[in-house]
Amino acid sequence: MRHVSLPVSLRANPSESAPLLVSGTVAYDDILTPTDSGEHLLGGSASYAALAASHFTTVRIASIVGADFAAADRERFLAREIDTAALQTDTSGDTFFWRGRYHDNFNTRDTLETRLGVNAHPRAPLPAGHETTPYVLLANDAPAIQLDLLAQMRSPRLVAADSMNLWIETDLARLRHVISKIHLFIVNDSEAAQLTGERNPVRAGHALLSFGARAAIVKKGEHGTLLFHPDGLFALPAFPVTELRDSTGAGDSFAGALAASLAVMQREDFDAIKTAMLYATATASLSIEAFSCNKLEAASTTAEIEARSAFLREMTRLPSVRSSF
Amino acid sequence: MRHVSLPVSLRANPSESAPLLVSGTVAYDDILTPTDSGEHLLGGSASYAALAASHFTTVRIASIVGADFAAADRERFLAREIDTAALQTDTSGDTFFWRGRYHDNFNTRDTLETRLGVNAHPRAPLPAGHETTPYVLLANDAPAIQLDLLAQMRSPRLVAADSMNLWIETDLARLRHVISKIHLFIVNDSEAAQLTGERNPVRAGHALLSFGARAAIVKKGEHGTLLFHPDGLFALPAFPVTELRDSTGAGDSFAGALAASLAVMQREDFDAIKTAMLYATATASLSIEAFSCNKLEAASTTAEIEARSAFLREMTRLPSVRSSF
Repeated sequence: MRHVSLPVSLRANPSESAPLLVSGTVAYDDILTPTDSGEHLLGGSASYAALAASHFTTVRIASIVGADFAAADRERFLAREIDTAALQTDTSGDTFFWRGRYHDNFNTRDTLETRLGVNAHPRAPLPAGHETTPYVLLANDAPAIQLDLLAQMRSPRLVAADSMNLWIETDLARLRHVISKIHLFIVNDSEAAQLTGERNPVRAGHALLSFGARAAIVKKGEHGTLLFHPDGLFALPAFPVTELRDSTGAGDSFAGALAASLAVMQREDFDAIKTAMLYATATASLSIEAFSCNKLEAASTTAEIEARSAFLREMTRLPSVRSSF
Repeated sequence: MRHVSLPVSLRANPSESAPLLVSGTVAYDDILTPTDSGEHLLGGSASYAALAASHFTTVRIASIVGADFAAADRERFLAREIDTAALQTDTSGDTFFWRGRYHDNFNTRDTLETRLGVNAHPRAPLPAGHETTPYVLLANDAPAIQLDLLAQMRSPRLVAADSMNLWIETDLARLRHVISKIHLFIVNDSEAAQLTGERNPVRAGHALLSFGARAAIVKKGEHGTLLFHPDGLFALPAFPVTELRDSTGAGDSFAGALAASLAVMQREDFDAIKTAMLYATATASLSIEAFSCNKLEAASTTAEIEARSAFLREMTRLPSVRSSF
């Protein structure tokens, strides 16, 4: 499978990419947008993140699905060469289910129904070999599940994690524990404010570092992303999307492409995270221009991520002070 | 007076800077913020823009004040070496007055009172010599006044203009005429949407170009700015302000510093406007950290604009794809 070709000059090991383990939810979604609707659509944080990551490197998905999970949906991961050995099936219940409706401008959405299903059940340990995966993304899920997964990993090189308002409201202490144990915490601006009590995103980002994450990314949707890192602050505008169709999974796609880009570079320094944000922003912009996770499954998306990353790089480039005219 | 030293490599004529004419309102403001309040404060679009521009180049202010205008306030312009020959006094009325209150987060403000005063009176022609000023900023004012000023200018090299919701609502046809005659139109995101009927800022920006402006800048406050230009799109994040004290005049300071930076470079191309946005963003960030226009009057602000511009340049720089690690 062809992968996004990050410039060789940005890679620590130009000859190889490290694999990425993505844990999180695999779900069925009913989605209603102003222009589309669909039922029983493949969704969940790990689905979006793993499909996004599959354009960059070898991906292992770790999650749980229920009796209702269709073989055809497992095939969709396999078609992207995603290793599903850690995608457990528990026939004592159904797959996690979410039903939501987006409002006219996509800035707000209502969760109409959530059924945890087997996502609340105990899980079997990771299959042998998975625990040494060097790059790990704990996509949005219950903090207890994120901690349990993390406890199984052996000396990962980089662990990134995402979360959401539900866990800030219902399991804050455990979520703080997750943040204190990882390298890179990813959260949106309203959740960063909720988590830190700081409405100003710059203050909120610095507060997240004081929680123990080595770096934090605050996502501002159409306004781009901010990286808070011991080496400094970095701001990246969003890709200029004009045809927003379904913002479901935008943050998960961003996180998946981000962690996967770092796995390709095999670097975790400030400059590497900046570069990963470029590719992650491009990937998320493609995800939201199609309904459900359709765009992330297309082989042609690999080339589109490359093209958008190049466009975004140029679109944010200030003229050098050294150039002469 | 020391000016912000833009890199010589960015200047068309390294040995000199062109002068800038700033027209707009000079006003007295009563301002109420969550932390400060003040009455009869020097304000208005031309005041903020001219004070901001004075850190870059020679500035001529063109406006009108009334019988109540204090000699001490004219002195504040002169202290920044701003030429006030075109700052007319009309003793048949009072100076434009605005009273406003900011809400907790500074995202919204209420205009409590506006008295146009002499700003609605006819004006004398510009003093001899002013009409050949090569760089012109039509800061926010009635479109009829902007058109009248523009009609007096002889072959200006660059004309930039700013506007606001009041004129979109009350004098749209004349405002469209202004936009069709200038090089660079500057507007905030909600006003761009109002003006074009496009809620998406990217679509709105392209629509502004179709109105006849050669380039358009859409300001998104704490989320930065977007430049729409025939040569492409450019996005610049905001400076990470953590101590917002009074956002009055932020847009005017941005416009003043932007037009002045172009006058220093004596260039109007895509790259020059990008660079000018950097300095304008830095200047606006300083303006809003102090109450009223206090920060823009301080001599020390020149050096702070340079420092913040350098910081913002670094904060938005992606690692080069050519560098090796």
